[in-house]
Amino acid sequence: MTNIATETRSVVVEREISYPPEKIWRALTQPHLIAEWLMKNDFKLAVGHRFNLRGDWGGVLDCEVLAVEPNRTLSYTWNFAHDDATYNLKSVVTFTLTPTATGARLRMEQAGFGPDQKQAFGGANTGWRQFFAKLEQVLARPE
Amino acid sequence: MTNIATETRSVVVEREISYPPEKIWRALTQPHLIAEWLMKNDFKLAVGHRFNLRGDWGGVLDCEVLAVEPNRTLSYTWNFAHDDATYNLKSVVTFTLTPTATGARLRMEQAGFGPDQKQAFGGANTGWRQFFAKLEQVLARPE
Repeated sequence: MTNIATETRSVVVEREISYPPEKIWRALTQPHLIAEWLMKNDFKLAVGHRFNLRGDWGGVLDCEVLAVEPNRTLSYTWNFAHDDATYNLKSVVTFTLTPTATGARLRMEQAGFGPDQKQAFGGANTGWRQFFAKLEQVLARPE
Repeated sequence: MTNIATETRSVVVEREISYPPEKIWRALTQPHLIAEWLMKNDFKLAVGHRFNLRGDWGGVLDCEVLAVEPNRTLSYTWNFAHDDATYNLKSVVTFTLTPTATGARLRMEQAGFGPDQKQAFGGANTGWRQFFAKLEQVLARPE
């Protein structure tokens, strides 16, 4: 037996980054840095904190911090409410940092795309690659 | 007497472009070109057509074509539904093309930002400049 209703897909993006986890962690958790590579926000590093990510075109995501393990794991909901089920997204984004010999491996998984949410899934696949490119620019900049 | 409740602000962006109005019009009205500089969409050039603009991060705008005057004027709603009035946006985007000696002037006005929607207004101001930069890249590309 399979339960199709609970089947979801994840977008996963991984990067080997030549900076230590602590530096990447700051870019993932400081609101003014998040604004530079992801979106404007009222993020706070506290489990249970509710915040919004705000796109420049008027769109808004509803988020809540789920898990924090400094310099290792950050997880938050990434929800978008819409009347059309195809667009109504309830997802969880999890960043995982693993130290390497030359810096860190950063893994992002966005989980929760339904079988009928192909457009959102495809968009996230593209979007996260763009976000990560901007993140690497922010990291490369002198502090 | 003033009626503060009906006071709204507009974002206006204008560009002098060295291509004829007809070429710019195509970029404003052909779905695969709109997708390149603005967002993925199911746009059709027909008054009354309802469509969505879809951001890569899962967000969606609800739109409807209001006015079409080929090579001159295109107008559509640009609405974002959200429980929080600060984010709940009902706006109208109007593109106006005017022929010039060297090509065309393109004017975009997004009207309808409420006095309490400073973030959306500021975001649109930034966003449209980015969209227009991408539009000019699309126009500059060999056809």
